[in-house]
Amino acid sequence: MKITVASNVGFCFGVKKSIEITEKTLEKYGKLRNVYVTGDLVHNEKVMEYLINKGLKILHVGENKLTDIPENSVIIIRAHGLPPDKISDLKSKFNLVIDTTCPIVRKMFEVAKDLLEEGRVLFVLGNKNHPEMVALKGHVKKVSFFSSIDELKEFLDEKSINKDAKIALISQTTKDLRTFCKAAYMLTERFKDLKIVKTICDFTVDREREVKKLAMESDLVIVVGSNKSSNTRKLFNIARKFTSTLFVSGSAQLNDSLEDFENIAIVSGTSTPINLIEEVVSFIKNKFGEVEVLWRSQI
Amino acid sequence: MKITVASNVGFCFGVKKSIEITEKTLEKYGKLRNVYVTGDLVHNEKVMEYLINKGLKILHVGENKLTDIPENSVIIIRAHGLPPDKISDLKSKFNLVIDTTCPIVRKMFEVAKDLLEEGRVLFVLGNKNHPEMVALKGHVKKVSFFSSIDELKEFLDEKSINKDAKIALISQTTKDLRTFCKAAYMLTERFKDLKIVKTICDFTVDREREVKKLAMESDLVIVVGSNKSSNTRKLFNIARKFTSTLFVSGSAQLNDSLEDFENIAIVSGTSTPINLIEEVVSFIKNKFGEVEVLWRSQI
Repeated sequence: MKITVASNVGFCFGVKKSIEITEKTLEKYGKLRNVYVTGDLVHNEKVMEYLINKGLKILHVGENKLTDIPENSVIIIRAHGLPPDKISDLKSKFNLVIDTTCPIVRKMFEVAKDLLEEGRVLFVLGNKNHPEMVALKGHVKKVSFFSSIDELKEFLDEKSINKDAKIALISQTTKDLRTFCKAAYMLTERFKDLKIVKTICDFTVDREREVKKLAMESDLVIVVGSNKSSNTRKLFNIARKFTSTLFVSGSAQLNDSLEDFENIAIVSGTSTPINLIEEVVSFIKNKFGEVEVLWRSQI
Repeated sequence: MKITVASNVGFCFGVKKSIEITEKTLEKYGKLRNVYVTGDLVHNEKVMEYLINKGLKILHVGENKLTDIPENSVIIIRAHGLPPDKISDLKSKFNLVIDTTCPIVRKMFEVAKDLLEEGRVLFVLGNKNHPEMVALKGHVKKVSFFSSIDELKEFLDEKSINKDAKIALISQTTKDLRTFCKAAYMLTERFKDLKIVKTICDFTVDREREVKKLAMESDLVIVVGSNKSSNTRKLFNIARKFTSTLFVSGSAQLNDSLEDFENIAIVSGTSTPINLIEEVVSFIKNKFGEVEVLWRSQI
């Protein structure tokens, strides 16, 4: 049996920075003040469990009553961002609000605002309930979300937007490039003046490309991460088009059936800690003995 | 046998206007002065023959020695346009220069200039030797032409353009929409910031859509027009993907083999005069007698 671990594994720099800031904040203030994060800091249960054990509390903006929370609490804004009015609200109530919004996500908000200011009709490839898109909605009021090409087609067939209208297309930072390009094709077919800004995070595109290559070369791909993570689900959806694929949050979901496979690839989303990958590799090595492991990042 | 004539046949308004202006110019000045056109006014031999019989002369800008041409000659600029320096040149030598550049082509020149002024790398779907593209080159110095998706791919693979560069995509007004949309897909895949202006003429797109529909419903499509005409060649290339297709310049190229077909559709490019369509219809009616003719424009 041979295991190949993708070169692009572990946290991306945005996730890493959010977690580091949170750890430091807990160290500095955790003993005397409550430290709250606005929802899951990143979409990984193990990471959240680790931080909650260190004292982190979860604040569900819009659900928790802010008056129940002590004024001296420290508030951390998650990597996916938050609508600006919610941030102002928090800042007016608490004296320490730390914003860990990923810079790539923040850039996307700015691009969206600029495109609307140009008077363009804004289309966004994204899931409207994903926290990144909820935050975006706070920045731009008039926006049409679609999460698949069928949904975009249906929308365009129903609404009659003038073909001379100026159109813009952007994306949730973790959506897949193929769907984005198909959307560019469809909008070009129907409209005359388009501005397309590819706000998809390059780091997640690199992982897309690598998972496709690995899936074509392997008889099993193990995707490690949380089902809540958009970019991890994306890797799973790409891999399973080419080969057998398992989506696991850790080694606990693995069993003897792995012995049917000769070439196994291991990949992960940007919010999966590297120790979960190591755990999966160790599990397989312990179970099957004769295993050759190749960490591509070490090539 | 049943013949269906497409609803979009005959001259488009741009061609019609060019020809009308030329006819009027010949009437007004033709007896006393030479009337020259810069190349083929429109890409149709029959139309050119008709105008030449009325006294029109052809001036091949860059080939004819302008000093050999009397100063009081009238110069007509063809529907496809001319590089601005050539127009200035003509205006400095002759006191009457009449510009019949199609307004849709002229708009495309303006769009190209604006996009370059924005600092964008300009890609144009077009044949670089087509007169419209030769005219465009006079307006914008830095431009990359491609006439197929393979050519664009080859260009992008060879040249290493920074993925953060600002890109623009436009088209020769008579190119096909499908290739244009595929180019939009390919550029979206590779670059981050794109502006796509669909400068393809709507009238030619309408003909594209109609020929596809007719081709799927017919066992023969007859495309009437000149092989020099880009938009007529486009119709031929679309039709033959779906059914048997003939490309003819008039009825002279038709023969008895038509009797093998039950449903015949007739289409034409924007530079084909309606009387050529009528001629083809009459030929078939005379030859095969029992023919039902449906002019879709009259539905």
